[in-house]
Amino acid sequence: MPTLLKLSCPDRPGLLARLTAFVAFHGGNLLEVNQFTDHSHGWFFARLAVDSETLALDLPALRKAFAPEAGELGAEWSLRRSEERMKVVLCVSKQGHCLHDLLWRWKASDLAIDIPLVISNHETYRETVEREGLRFAHVPMTAETKEAGFRQMDALIREAGADLVVLARYMQILPDWFCQAWSGKTINIHHSFLPAFVGANPYQKAFDRGVKLIGATCHYVTGDLDEGPIIEQEVARVGHFHNPADLIRLGQDCERVALARGVRYHAQDRVLIHGNKTVVFAD
Amino acid sequence: MPTLLKLSCPDRPGLLARLTAFVAFHGGNLLEVNQFTDHSHGWFFARLAVDSETLALDLPALRKAFAPEAGELGAEWSLRRSEERMKVVLCVSKQGHCLHDLLWRWKASDLAIDIPLVISNHETYRETVEREGLRFAHVPMTAETKEAGFRQMDALIREAGADLVVLARYMQILPDWFCQAWSGKTINIHHSFLPAFVGANPYQKAFDRGVKLIGATCHYVTGDLDEGPIIEQEVARVGHFHNPADLIRLGQDCERVALARGVRYHAQDRVLIHGNKTVVFAD
Amino acid sequence: MPTLLKLSCPDRPGLLARLTAFVAFHGGNLLEVNQFTDHSHGWFFARLAVDSETLALDLPALRKAFAPEAGELGAEWSLRRSEERMKVVLCVSKQGHCLHDLLWRWKASDLAIDIPLVISNHETYRETVEREGLRFAHVPMTAETKEAGFRQMDALIREAGADLVVLARYMQILPDWFCQAWSGKTINIHHSFLPAFVGANPYQKAFDRGVKLIGATCHYVTGDLDEGPIIEQEVARVGHFHNPADLIRLGQDCERVALARGVRYHAQDRVLIHGNKTVVFAD
Amino acid sequence: MPTLLKLSCPDRPGLLARLTAFVAFHGGNLLEVNQFTDHSHGWFFARLAVDSETLALDLPALRKAFAPEAGELGAEWSLRRSEERMKVVLCVSKQGHCLHDLLWRWKASDLAIDIPLVISNHETYRETVEREGLRFAHVPMTAETKEAGFRQMDALIREAGADLVVLARYMQILPDWFCQAWSGKTINIHHSFLPAFVGANPYQKAFDRGVKLIGATCHYVTGDLDEGPIIEQEVARVGHFHNPADLIRLGQDCERVALARGVRYHAQDRVLIHGNKTVVFAD
Repeated sequence: MPTLLKLSCPDRPGLLARLTAFVAFHGGNLLEVNQFTDHSHGWFFARLAVDSETLALDLPALRKAFAPEAGELGAEWSLRRSEERMKVVLCVSKQGHCLHDLLWRWKASDLAIDIPLVISNHETYRETVEREGLRFAHVPMTAETKEAGFRQMDALIREAGADLVVLARYMQILPDWFCQAWSGKTINIHHSFLPAFVGANPYQKAFDRGVKLIGATCHYVTGDLDEGPIIEQEVARVGHFHNPADLIRLGQDCERVALARGVRYHAQDRVLIHGNKTVVFAD
Repeated sequence: MPTLLKLSCPDRPGLLARLTAFVAFHGGNLLEVNQFTDHSHGWFFARLAVDSETLALDLPALRKAFAPEAGELGAEWSLRRSEERMKVVLCVSKQGHCLHDLLWRWKASDLAIDIPLVISNHETYRETVEREGLRFAHVPMTAETKEAGFRQMDALIREAGADLVVLARYMQILPDWFCQAWSGKTINIHHSFLPAFVGANPYQKAFDRGVKLIGATCHYVTGDLDEGPIIEQEVARVGHFHNPADLIRLGQDCERVALARGVRYHAQDRVLIHGNKTVVFAD
Repeated sequence: MPTLLKLSCPDRPGLLARLTAFVAFHGGNLLEVNQFTDHSHGWFFARLAVDSETLALDLPALRKAFAPEAGELGAEWSLRRSEERMKVVLCVSKQGHCLHDLLWRWKASDLAIDIPLVISNHETYRETVEREGLRFAHVPMTAETKEAGFRQMDALIREAGADLVVLARYMQILPDWFCQAWSGKTINIHHSFLPAFVGANPYQKAFDRGVKLIGATCHYVTGDLDEGPIIEQEVARVGHFHNPADLIRLGQDCERVALARGVRYHAQDRVLIHGNKTVVFAD
Repeated sequence: MPTLLKLSCPDRPGLLARLTAFVAFHGGNLLEVNQFTDHSHGWFFARLAVDSETLALDLPALRKAFAPEAGELGAEWSLRRSEERMKVVLCVSKQGHCLHDLLWRWKASDLAIDIPLVISNHETYRETVEREGLRFAHVPMTAETKEAGFRQMDALIREAGADLVVLARYMQILPDWFCQAWSGKTINIHHSFLPAFVGANPYQKAFDRGVKLIGATCHYVTGDLDEGPIIEQEVARVGHFHNPADLIRLGQDCERVALARGVRYHAQDRVLIHGNKTVVFAD
């Protein structure tokens, strides 16, 4: 299992040499290295996967050794052992295709995450969740209870020790404070190829516009609805013979695949956010 | 070579039976039939390709025989022999990839059209055009000469006997009167997957937004910029490592393919416009 | 709900006129018509979807009225009301992604079929099946019991009144007599883009060959392994950084989608077999 | 403009640290780093793009400084300034779509190569080539003159100082000695998604088999026909309504794109061959 170093910082000469030398100094054998420099913004991004067996230090010691280096570079960074799986809380409303798909991939060990909790504003998928031995929490949302509801969700998510929140077709607009509290840690699936058809009913809008391609967008949630950094997108071809119900059916396959990929990339520390864009070292 | 009947009208029972009976009555053997009913608008669309050899009447006589039928149905229709190729005028500015691609397909007999004229607001592609034995007209466009320029273009296009005008990356906004005069007969290629990134510099906008897919849209031109009926769209995957110049390069392959398909479909009478949408009986 | 007429026969002039006249004569309003003529073999294919409400006759009477017509044409045909869902028996071994996907689409009413029975040579997915309220039958297969096992499967499938058998990653080679008994009624998903990588372990073979695209093929089963008529194919891009396990993971998404589409097309009478090829009037 | 270091060698700890240290030691600022380790074969692959302006040594001195390092690692390597464009000889027979596409990309500065020569066994494209100011050589090939013809081609290619030979639909089987002489330096485009449909007439074979996807494969040429290391593949969807001529038309778009990408990757030192597979650090 690899130990994962993820880092971004202002660019300067010799950065990768420093990082690889640090790893080599501690005996680490590199399994996979990804590096990207955004020359227009002078920013450096890297992900190093190191064979955990070969490292002379344990994780806390390694972090301690790296901290001064990172501080000097002005870096945003994380250092994590991939065997400690991310804890991912799933949120769903009444459309279960994405929930179902993620549960299947998790069960098939295709998605190496833990799922301590599934939250919904409806009871629809309680059985689907509980029969997998997972915890289901019903947090109702009405216009009046919305603020209280999100406070409750926030508490439940914290209690579950979540590293990531996934909105697997969760049809409620999140309050700003929630978006900020979980910034960079909340992934949503939007049912259009953004920036086309922001907001509600994108498939109906796509039908009305007569597009020949529909799609789905997996992105981080920010306070600006449907405007957060995009992680992954997927499209499908449609024709005049497809009605809005067909678009929903075909689009759901895009949603499932785009969300599964986005969650996978995040869970493997393959996504680095910079401003409103992402660097994705896809596998 | 087939004779092509293209027709749309309010739906009613027995329409296809009537059309096929009409063809059979005149000895015609059907080569290909495409039919679609838009149930939400109660509208019927059909394209019948008939073996010209088997028809007892010549084209004018057949048109005359069909006219009362079509009148009774309240139909919009055309009846054409495909061996009489459409006359297509191409317009281009300084980016020649689409022009070049169309010329190649035309030369390779991949695109069964005639090209009586290529118009440009620059001299850039005169040689490219003339060495194929085609006529090139330079119609300069400045803020002051724009109205006169488009009047000249309109005159040239009429003189060329054009059935279709193709804007193969022609970077001028068309005046309303021109759009109306050539309504349903002007095809444009927009360098984004509409409705995303309308207007100028879509690749820069796509780069700024950090999308993971870029695209191109082939559509009929209307007075509303980038809002006309879509014929065809194509997309390509992009990543964080692509800069705006890369997006342009990758997008051009989408533009070439989407425009070539759109022109081909139109030239084979495979596109029926209804309101702001198209029915495309693609091959 | 539509009544579906599916028909193929030697081509001759006036065929579609006759079919549409027959429908119109019995008061039927056409909802969707698909027609194709294979000119190289002189063969005609059609699918007519008729609004059941508008038909003057019930199904048995309509069949009786059509039979002489069909006989005269030398046609292979079926006439069916789509509200009578096809009965589909699913077969699975130890890899459940396709089974799971089909169950989900069935539950979500995305796939309008009935599933009277799921058969497996392992107990692995008994719970998955039974918790959906479906019947599960374990039919073990060893080298010695194979013939008896397939006799038992055949009996179970007949007893279930199956219209279609779907091999959703069922990893046993079917005996010839079974293939013939269920000819045109058994759909398999092969985990490569046929005809590449026939036989066992296609992902390992794809890895060894270093291909940049992997895929899946949905086809009818015949006595010749992996040689039956292809209904649908799907591909995914891969790279040098993917190992055989990655190919399996990425390929499974292709398998799920290709099989689901194939079953959907068949269940809607959209597939016509002719020799070793299919005509698919996809939606 | 970058200086490009391409290297593959047996894997060992600290390799990337050594390479990046070497670059840093000579003042080089890294623009792009790609690294891959094939763990099953214990082999290391890397491509480092260094800002030429920042390097303290000129190219010959840098090569001299790196040679002992590379020798000690048992590495296969190249060090090249990208401003010195590769010299690419194109070979074509009677189908010009790939030739034409490469010429266009070269002219549009999309493909940063020099084309000192185009060779053909026919006169068909002499004008196409010469009007671009390029040299065209006609080397006829008959059963009797084949050996002499390839000797002449080899001499012409050497004389042109070629770094790469591109078979842009050159329809002659190359003799073994030629494949070996230009091993790793000859790129072919095969008109199927290999390993499906090796040999002649792949589109006819695809039609006969009734596949729903056709494709093209860009690969290095080896003595085993159609068996060389694959660089890139592309596919397109087809249906029952497409005849062999349609498959050729649709497939040509795949061929153009796959070959252009393959040549681009090679010309930018993005492809490393290992055994019968490639590592492609695509952009």
